[in-house]
Amino acid sequence: MQFELTSEYLELLKKDIANFDKKALNSRLSELHAADIAEIFYNLEREESKQLYRLLDDETASEVLLELQEELREEILASLTSKEIAGQIDQMDSDDAADVINELPENIQEEVLSQIEDESQASDIADLLNYEEGTAGSLMAKELVAVYAHDSVSACIEEIRRQTTDVKVMYAVYVVDENDKLLGLLSLRTLLVSDPDAKIGSIYDAEVISVQTSQPTAEVSEIMEKYDLVVLPVVDETGRLLGRITIDDVVDVIREEAEKDIQRMSGITDTVAERDSLWRLSRARIPWLLVGMGGGIIASRIIGVYEGQIKIQPEMAFFIPLIGATGGNVGVQSSAIIVQGLANNTLLGDKIAGRLLKELGVGCINGLICSGLILGYNLIISDSVSLAATVSVALMTVILFASFLGTFVPLTMNRFKINPALATGPFVTTLNDIIGITIYFMVGRMMYNHI
Amino acid sequence: MQFELTSEYLELLKKDIANFDKKALNSRLSELHAADIAEIFYNLEREESKQLYRLLDDETASEVLLELQEELREEILASLTSKEIAGQIDQMDSDDAADVINELPENIQEEVLSQIEDESQASDIADLLNYEEGTAGSLMAKELVAVYAHDSVSACIEEIRRQTTDVKVMYAVYVVDENDKLLGLLSLRTLLVSDPDAKIGSIYDAEVISVQTSQPTAEVSEIMEKYDLVVLPVVDETGRLLGRITIDDVVDVIREEAEKDIQRMSGITDTVAERDSLWRLSRARIPWLLVGMGGGIIASRIIGVYEGQIKIQPEMAFFIPLIGATGGNVGVQSSAIIVQGLANNTLLGDKIAGRLLKELGVGCINGLICSGLILGYNLIISDSVSLAATVSVALMTVILFASFLGTFVPLTMNRFKINPALATGPFVTTLNDIIGITIYFMVGRMMYNHI
Repeated sequence: MQFELTSEYLELLKKDIANFDKKALNSRLSELHAADIAEIFYNLEREESKQLYRLLDDETASEVLLELQEELREEILASLTSKEIAGQIDQMDSDDAADVINELPENIQEEVLSQIEDESQASDIADLLNYEEGTAGSLMAKELVAVYAHDSVSACIEEIRRQTTDVKVMYAVYVVDENDKLLGLLSLRTLLVSDPDAKIGSIYDAEVISVQTSQPTAEVSEIMEKYDLVVLPVVDETGRLLGRITIDDVVDVIREEAEKDIQRMSGITDTVAERDSLWRLSRARIPWLLVGMGGGIIASRIIGVYEGQIKIQPEMAFFIPLIGATGGNVGVQSSAIIVQGLANNTLLGDKIAGRLLKELGVGCINGLICSGLILGYNLIISDSVSLAATVSVALMTVILFASFLGTFVPLTMNRFKINPALATGPFVTTLNDIIGITIYFMVGRMMYNHI
Repeated sequence: MQFELTSEYLELLKKDIANFDKKALNSRLSELHAADIAEIFYNLEREESKQLYRLLDDETASEVLLELQEELREEILASLTSKEIAGQIDQMDSDDAADVINELPENIQEEVLSQIEDESQASDIADLLNYEEGTAGSLMAKELVAVYAHDSVSACIEEIRRQTTDVKVMYAVYVVDENDKLLGLLSLRTLLVSDPDAKIGSIYDAEVISVQTSQPTAEVSEIMEKYDLVVLPVVDETGRLLGRITIDDVVDVIREEAEKDIQRMSGITDTVAERDSLWRLSRARIPWLLVGMGGGIIASRIIGVYEGQIKIQPEMAFFIPLIGATGGNVGVQSSAIIVQGLANNTLLGDKIAGRLLKELGVGCINGLICSGLILGYNLIISDSVSLAATVSVALMTVILFASFLGTFVPLTMNRFKINPALATGPFVTTLNDIIGITIYFMVGRMMYNHI
C-alpha cells in the first residue's frame, strides 16, 4: 500500500534518467504519490534530480515541486523559464502558488505572475502575496465553496457542482449573506439528507469559528488544535469571507514551531537545515557559542580570585566540571518543564511563587540524593574531609540555585513576551556555570577555614 | 468570536459554583466550546472544579471530560459512580470512550463497560481496548460510513442517512466489497454531483491509503502528514475495514512526540507534566543527573592526574569551565541539526562520511573564530604565553571533537534504532566534558614543556 524505496528501484530509475527515457520513467512513477516521488529526489545526485524533474509529466511535476524542501525547489525553479514556472503554478491551489512565487527572486515574481494564463488564479495569487508572512492571510487559500443563506438546497447543490471545478477537496460549504459576510457553515451531510426545497438559511450551523487575516499563524494553529478543526474560514475586519486554512498547512506550522523551539534550546539562532551552506550553519551557531565563551571568561576571572587557594589545595580544581555540569543539567531540566507548561497553557492560573516552590522541592530531593552520593564517594576516595564537605555543600546549593533559575528565568521571559524556549538553552546553562563556580569556591574557602 | 477568560467572568462563575446555581451556571456556559470550559477548570481551585463538573449538563460534561488533561480527568472520574461514568461514555465516540476507560483503574473498567446502555457502543469499546497502546488500532474509532460497491448512488445516500445518526462529523464514505474488504473511497462531492442511478463501483476512487491495526502511531502520523490526509482508514491483515483515524488525534500524537523529544533532550527520562507529583518529577530527572555526575567524577580523576601541574600552574584551572561549556554547546548544536534531519527524512540518502565532513567544516570555522578571540584575550590579559597557547589549541581541538561526536553519536544511535534525540541531551554533553578536559590537560602539558 505504501511505497518503500529500494535500491533496485533506484538503479532502474537512474538508468531511465541517464537515457532521457521520459516514457519509461513516467510509467514507472505513475503509481506513486507526489510525496513519494519527492523522496526519490533526495536519493539522487543534484544533477540527476534536475534531470528527473525535466523529464516528469507536467501535472506530476507541479505536484512534486510542492513536496520538495525549499532549497531543492529553489534550485529547480532557477533552471526553468518564467513561462514554464507560470505553467506549473497555474495548476496549484492559490495558497501553494503564492508560496512558490514568494520564494522566487523579486525581479522574476512579476514576470511569472504576468504569464499565468488563468486570470482569476493570477489575481488570487497577487492578492495573497499582500499578506505578511506569519499571518493567517499568508496561510489561507482562496478556493472555497460558499452559498447564500437565501438559496434553496437544490440551488445550493447546483452551485456546488459549478464551484467545485477548481476546488480539489471540499471540506465545508460556507454560508454568507448578500455582502459576503460569513454567517455559518453547512455540512455536506446536512445537505445530503435535507429536503431539496428547504432554504439554506434554516438548516445551516451558525456556530462557526473564524480568524482574521492579520492573526498570527501561532494563534491559527492553537485555535484549530483546541477546537479540533479540519478547516478554518478567514475573514477581513468587517467579517467578509476571504479564504480558508486547512489542517495540513497547520500541521506544517506545528512541526516548524517545534523545530524552531528545539533549535532555540540548542543555541542555534536562525532556523537552519542540515542542508544549508557551511557559512549559514556557522553564522547561526556562533552567537550562543560566544555567549558561552563570555560566561567561560567570567568563570575564569572568578576562579582567578582563588588562585592562591588552588596552589595550596589543587584538589579544589578536580570538581569544577562536576559542579558546572550538574548545575547546567538541573537548570535545563527545570526550564524544559516550565517552557512546556507555558506552551500547553496548563500553567495559566498558577502563580509564579507556587511554581518556584515546587521546583525547589524537586531540587531538594535530587540535591540530597546527588550530594549524599558524592559525599560518600569523596569520603572513601579522598582523605580531605574539607574537600568532601565543600563539594557536597556546594553541589546542594548549586542544584537549588539552578532549580530556581531554571524556573524563574523562563517565567520572567514569558511575562515580558520573550520566547521562553531561549531560556532552556545555553543562556540558563551559562548563567548556572558562573553561579555554580562562584558558590563552589565561596563554600570552599569557608570549609577549608573551618574544618 | 473566540473566548477570552476574564477575571470578572471567573468571579461570576465562582459565585454560581459556591451557590450551587446549576441553571445560572449552565446558561452562562452555554455559548462556550467544551475546550473553553476545560480552560476554566485550570483557573479554579481543585474543589471548585470538581463542584463545577457536578453542576454541568450531562452532554457538556462528557465533552468537557475529553478536553481536560489526564490528571484532572482521573481525579474527576474518581469522584463519580461507575453508572455515572457509563452514562458519560455512552455519548462519546468509540475511540475517546476507549481512551477514558483505559485510564480507569482495572477493577472498575469492566463494571463501567457492563453499565453502558448502548450495546453496540459497549462492544465497540471492548474491541478497541484490545489494541496495544502506541498502535494504529489504539488511535482508531469505529464510527464510519461504508457502502457497497454494487449499490447505486441513491441507495448509498439512503444508507448514509441511516448510518450517520451516530457519526458526528463525516469525513469520507468508504467503499467495501461483500466481505467488508476496503476497495476505495467516495468523496461526498462526487456523490452530490453524480447521477442517482449510477453504481458506486463505477464512480469511487480506488487509490486509497490505509494502515493496519498493528502499525505504530509514529508511522500513522508520518503517513497522514506525508500525504496530507484528514482521515485514514484502518484495516486488519486481510484488508477488512475496521475503523478510521482522524487528523485531530494525529495532531495530538505529533505534539506529544515533539514534547517527548524536548524532554529527552533536556535529560528527563519519563514524560512528565509540570503538574505531576514532586516524587514523579524527581524520579524522572535523577537518572541523567547521575550520568552527569558520573562524568564529573571521571573528569575529576583526569584532572587529578595533573595535580602536580596545577600546583605549579594554577592558572590552568581557570579555563576548565570555558573548555567544558564550549565543547558542550558545540556538541548540542551539531546533534540538534542531525536529529532534526533524521526526523524530517531529509538525511535519507546521505552517507555518514559526508555529514561528518560538513559538520567538521562548520566546526573549523567556528573553532577558528572562538580560539582566535580567546587567544587575543589571553595575550592581552595574562602574561603566560603557554597558557594562551594551551587554551586556544585545546579549544580548537575540543570544538572539532565535539562537532564529530555531535554528528557521529546520533547517526550511530539511529542506525541501531535508538532514538537519536537522547543523544542531543546530557549524554553528548557529558561525553564532551570528559573528552574536553582530557584534551585540555594533554595540550597543557605539551605546551608548558615546549613554549
